[in-house]
Amino acid sequence: MADSPITSRDKDFAAWYQDVVLQGDMAEPAEIVKGCMVIKPNGYAVWEGLQGELDRRFKATGHQNIYLPLLIPQSFLKKEAEHVAGFSPELAVVTIAGGKELEEPYVIRPTSETIVGHFFAKWIQSYRDLPLLFNQWANVIRWELRTRMFLRTTEFLWQEGHTAHATHAEASEEALRILNLYAEVAEDVMAMPVIKGAKTSAEKFAGARKSYSIEAMMQNGLALQAGTSHDLGQNFGKAFDVQFQTREGKLDYVWQTSWGVSTRLIGGLIMTHSDDKGLVLPPRVSPMKAVIVPIFRKDEERSQVMEVAVRLASELGAHVDARDGYSPGAKFFHWERRGVPVVFELGPRDVATGNIVIKRRHGDEGDHPSKRSGIGVGDDARCDSEGPLSECEAALKGQHRHGQFDR
Amino acid sequence: MADSPITSRDKDFAAWYQDVVLQGDMAEPAEIVKGCMVIKPNGYAVWEGLQGELDRRFKATGHQNIYLPLLIPQSFLKKEAEHVAGFSPELAVVTIAGGKELEEPYVIRPTSETIVGHFFAKWIQSYRDLPLLFNQWANVIRWELRTRMFLRTTEFLWQEGHTAHATHAEASEEALRILNLYAEVAEDVMAMPVIKGAKTSAEKFAGARKSYSIEAMMQNGLALQAGTSHDLGQNFGKAFDVQFQTREGKLDYVWQTSWGVSTRLIGGLIMTHSDDKGLVLPPRVSPMKAVIVPIFRKDEERSQVMEVAVRLASELGAHVDARDGYSPGAKFFHWERRGVPVVFELGPRDVATGNIVIKRRHGDEGDHPSKRSGIGVGDDARCDSEGPLSECEAALKGQHRHGQFDR
Repeated sequence: MADSPITSRDKDFAAWYQDVVLQGDMAEPAEIVKGCMVIKPNGYAVWEGLQGELDRRFKATGHQNIYLPLLIPQSFLKKEAEHVAGFSPELAVVTIAGGKELEEPYVIRPTSETIVGHFFAKWIQSYRDLPLLFNQWANVIRWELRTRMFLRTTEFLWQEGHTAHATHAEASEEALRILNLYAEVAEDVMAMPVIKGAKTSAEKFAGARKSYSIEAMMQNGLALQAGTSHDLGQNFGKAFDVQFQTREGKLDYVWQTSWGVSTRLIGGLIMTHSDDKGLVLPPRVSPMKAVIVPIFRKDEERSQVMEVAVRLASELGAHVDARDGYSPGAKFFHWERRGVPVVFELGPRDVATGNIVIKRRHGDEGDHPSKRSGIGVGDDARCDSEGPLSECEAALKGQHRHGQFDR
Repeated sequence: MADSPITSRDKDFAAWYQDVVLQGDMAEPAEIVKGCMVIKPNGYAVWEGLQGELDRRFKATGHQNIYLPLLIPQSFLKKEAEHVAGFSPELAVVTIAGGKELEEPYVIRPTSETIVGHFFAKWIQSYRDLPLLFNQWANVIRWELRTRMFLRTTEFLWQEGHTAHATHAEASEEALRILNLYAEVAEDVMAMPVIKGAKTSAEKFAGARKSYSIEAMMQNGLALQAGTSHDLGQNFGKAFDVQFQTREGKLDYVWQTSWGVSTRLIGGLIMTHSDDKGLVLPPRVSPMKAVIVPIFRKDEERSQVMEVAVRLASELGAHVDARDGYSPGAKFFHWERRGVPVVFELGPRDVATGNIVIKRRHGDEGDHPSKRSGIGVGDDARCDSEGPLSECEAALKGQHRHGQFDR
């Protein structure tokens, strides 16, 4: 493969990653908007698949989707001291709108805890209003210096959950429920083993009491933070004066959680499964499960082959690549680079004998670091609500190195 | 209904609309962000339903979803003269990011034709690359002076299609295909009759050669522009230098279309169907199709009624409202205001006799203006690709008045 468009992993892992993303029609840099990308059809289709899997699980656990404004009054961020310190350097600020300078600028949401706090104060009066279990699918902006497609971009797509509870026990349980939900999607849907655990105080979300994360190990041996779930305590409740009347008739501040996964998941997916030939997508997240490449030379072969191809495609939910002007080899590489799990070649001999040759999507020879380290699905640090948190932290610290992409 | 929380339509149509939206848990004004709203669970669930119906049809007609940056370099808008004149007064401008004043400000997309033009120039070289059929689900911002929830908000959610073609005939056909697709969703899914037609030159999209729209008649007798589809000609192709090699080996500019529907559809849905008792949602767009309110006084009645309620709910896909501390009447009004099409009351007598009383969702006595005017589903101005455009325009002009919310 002297003229492969994809740099090998051994030669330059970062260049390999970029090549896989570009060749897989997943994304491309939007160089005219600093640190942004265009998510291309194959990449967006993978995101839609992940959205579906996550959204179904959010709803099954009682969450409802809402949509909050993109713009947040700048003063809102200042109400929670750690939060503003953490996010200030990353903000994009709207100072002009409708042709006029604004009296108070708006920031583009880097995350929505503050505006959620404002509305929770309006919506919550009594313990009867609790719990509130909301999720939002949205874009956010964090001005980043060093960016990489999917892994860290100035704008990214994500979901952000925001919940309010009457007790800390309930909020803590919620944060861990979501952590487990994330791990399930990562492992069962994306086939990406993760370790669940609590972040250190230095690494927790700006404004959280406790942050949990799932961390996945990439092929270069670095850990990628793939999702976070925060026990916010009463920090935002106090900052935004979200008080409620308890069952006993007293006033208390709500206990909140927030949690999110983003298009970064797709970066993790790519760095977990792909190889030197390009993108590899596990069947459950591959938008296209199988492609049939019909092969024929003569006209009578064409109709014979196409008839079987179309029937098979319909039975299997596969796509028939019947484009003119492309060789079977070119078609094979086209779909291989897009990560389609299975490509069939179907020629006159196959039709005659009834034996179809499956060109299996390339696979690695099994040198993924998660095998070397002995860490696999299910080998998590103990992080259920019964387990002591310090145990999770210790387990996590001992096992993972921080990747350069962690946010 | 002396203490109804909903103003009657006759008394004040605008107040009625706002009451229906608020009481239906559809949205509420986000007064702290000028002209924005929070889309609440019931409203967002309706939007998800519409998204699903539209997205399925876009994909079935060969379109692929992509995602482009929220921010657009300010200079991009200036490349197409009409476009910048049309959108300049409505722009929100980011001048500070990452703690620094930007050398060139970014605008938050009011629509994406310009950034699409930039990428089309990168992606299109030859007639073999055409057509490109893309769609994007996104938020946009247009700084509006007078806003109203769903109908006109500073930020709104929408889909924007962007396609490029080798000939004007193909582009024109695409613009009309989508117009028909929009009309199908409005009429078959939303049960909202529309008139299809071409906008006048004064009303067309800023930068378009020709704009088509679907217009729906609201209960106050005003027309609401509910979706638009634009034949952009070569205007953006020339502005962004999107040239391709034709089949004959010459160079030409691409022919483009763009088209969109937004959360405004929900405003149209409300003003088409709802009444003085509140929200009315047609079954196909109602997130919850049916609710069962169990009624019992004694404990032995409770178990009897609940057993049947749960079985019925599972068979019908209905929700059982088993909340304690609320009267059956309060529950009925709760779901009525949220537009649930059918509410069952289920008591011990119903269980004993096997006859269940369906409390039908309130309905109007049939005085919708679309009946008075004699305009109904299918009575469109002729706007297929064969029909002369002037005919569509004339037909449309003669039949509709412009609503105050048209954008």
